[in-house]
Amino acid sequence: MSLDSQAVETLRWSNGRLEMIDQRILPTRFEYLPYGSASAVAEGIRSMVVRGAPAIGCAAAYGVALESLVLRQASREAFGTGMETGFSILAASRPTAVNLFWALKRMRGVWEANKHRTVQEIADLLLAEAHEISADDVRINRAMGAYGAALLPDGARVLTHCNAGALATAGHGTALGVIRSAVEAGKHISVIADETRPFLQGARLTAWEMVQENIPVTLITDNMAGHLMSRGEIDAVVVGTDRVAANGDVANKIGTYMVAVLAQRHHIPFYVACPLSTIDLAIPDGAAIPIEERAADEVTGFRENQWAAKGVRVRNPAFDVTPAELVTALITEKGVVNQPNRVDIARLFI
Amino acid sequence: MSLDSQAVETLRWSNGRLEMIDQRILPTRFEYLPYGSASAVAEGIRSMVVRGAPAIGCAAAYGVALESLVLRQASREAFGTGMETGFSILAASRPTAVNLFWALKRMRGVWEANKHRTVQEIADLLLAEAHEISADDVRINRAMGAYGAALLPDGARVLTHCNAGALATAGHGTALGVIRSAVEAGKHISVIADETRPFLQGARLTAWEMVQENIPVTLITDNMAGHLMSRGEIDAVVVGTDRVAANGDVANKIGTYMVAVLAQRHHIPFYVACPLSTIDLAIPDGAAIPIEERAADEVTGFRENQWAAKGVRVRNPAFDVTPAELVTALITEKGVVNQPNRVDIARLFI
Repeated sequence: MSLDSQAVETLRWSNGRLEMIDQRILPTRFEYLPYGSASAVAEGIRSMVVRGAPAIGCAAAYGVALESLVLRQASREAFGTGMETGFSILAASRPTAVNLFWALKRMRGVWEANKHRTVQEIADLLLAEAHEISADDVRINRAMGAYGAALLPDGARVLTHCNAGALATAGHGTALGVIRSAVEAGKHISVIADETRPFLQGARLTAWEMVQENIPVTLITDNMAGHLMSRGEIDAVVVGTDRVAANGDVANKIGTYMVAVLAQRHHIPFYVACPLSTIDLAIPDGAAIPIEERAADEVTGFRENQWAAKGVRVRNPAFDVTPAELVTALITEKGVVNQPNRVDIARLFI
Repeated sequence: MSLDSQAVETLRWSNGRLEMIDQRILPTRFEYLPYGSASAVAEGIRSMVVRGAPAIGCAAAYGVALESLVLRQASREAFGTGMETGFSILAASRPTAVNLFWALKRMRGVWEANKHRTVQEIADLLLAEAHEISADDVRINRAMGAYGAALLPDGARVLTHCNAGALATAGHGTALGVIRSAVEAGKHISVIADETRPFLQGARLTAWEMVQENIPVTLITDNMAGHLMSRGEIDAVVVGTDRVAANGDVANKIGTYMVAVLAQRHHIPFYVACPLSTIDLAIPDGAAIPIEERAADEVTGFRENQWAAKGVRVRNPAFDVTPAELVTALITEKGVVNQPNRVDIARLFI
């Protein structure tokens, strides 16, 4: 199991089905699981076999393509009904990351533009579109990486929260893509990774990606970032995002808001790597972003190791909202938006 | 295993030895471990069988008493040498909590005032002093509880970090003592417990104490407090402390600083339950408080369950410093010190 980021294919198409790395068991085991229908992919998203906003978008696109392949022998009417069901099941898999809905909308666009074609032709076009969404994702991450790399000084100690890496995308990563691009540009970058309870994406996934590439990485628990900042041991923060509202408010993995508040207090730049597919102009501000609440057993322990006192209640919001005022800049594939605001964000889409 | 706080004897004297609840395995198992010497007690402190600043102080006092009993057949000279070694070993067990040094100083005072007596007499006096330190601790916690309870409104949702409960003291607790006293006074209080990585004192110990007494308690991961505050779901914060500097800077379990920064942003009162034994007038401010760095395997997993990527570096500071400006009030056994500062803190000792 010695893989560099180029070799980490979070999702891959193989023999007519989707295969996804089972991110629940990384880094202990590295295994692909096969998916053959929209409902199977939806369950893979819900259970976090695949996670990370861009990767969820790619997975959902393949889910639609798979469903069309399942239905390609069906009558036109049965195909239409089945596809609608597939779209609905995928849309209900996770509520916060907008890339899911963005990808489904793109797939629906292909379907609706080609309803006059045969079912087999539609299925072929949907699969081609899913492949294109994945390929676009890598290109976009490379563009963001180049813009973001310029923001990081040589020698920077960069805190990141959760995993916005190759595993969260079709490749290269968003926040970790910025770090990778800075390293590729010859800068010496070291990473401080929040472990990111409860699912431990930082300890398991970000640390693993960085170790694979020999980028120095130091793991901390989520409650240590403030201490390190107060001691002058962090120079910048770079995180990903699941949805950015029209005003620049940023929804991301739970705990991101705390990091942003601390970064402001310590005058540390707080950057959000954010493909345009993550910006939701239909949402005026962060208060309107739905926040997923997940199961209690994620908080009372980790996997089968349950350590909390029996009888305790639990809250488990999977995301929080960082107000735009705390964001130094959004890093997009179209350039950097400093002090994000409604006007400059809208301009990205012109 | 159904115990109320009165029955939770964190430390107890039994058949000529000290017994301490093994807090490493709570709440899965409830077991006492026996201790018969200063070095054994020091190892119990270091390995966190016992933890919590006041409880560490009590344990160290018993450690001194035990050493004198071990040495009570020795010559006066051997007794003196042995006792000095015992003091040194105990003083080296953990660096941050000042109660350890406070208790050792109190024990040394008894020894030095009674050097003219027989070794057996000295041993008896040291054991009596250790018992007295424990009894004092409970009385002090009750007094702090009464002062602190008055600060919490009926219906308050109170966030606490780590465990400053009965298990962190000889009984009643400091921060949880404030909550217990408020509940005893008829107030409806609900507790939000940070799980407190890496040792999970919140999930394992605070949640357990509160469940035992039917005080409503909700467990969150350490990175969720900001989100709950932003949604108006927390009314006050009460924490304990391991050392308070002369200017009111507060060292406490790692993560406390982050909670304090967030509380200030959201205009939520941030209270520190702080017996006078925790105030270190010899330390001018928080920068001079030694911060213990613990082993990497606490951060890369929990106990034998190691989940982090192999090859990752680790930081594991066990405490952080919250500057006095973020502290709404210190709650002491001599009353409440609002906006703690050098002058008002010094006045407590007059």
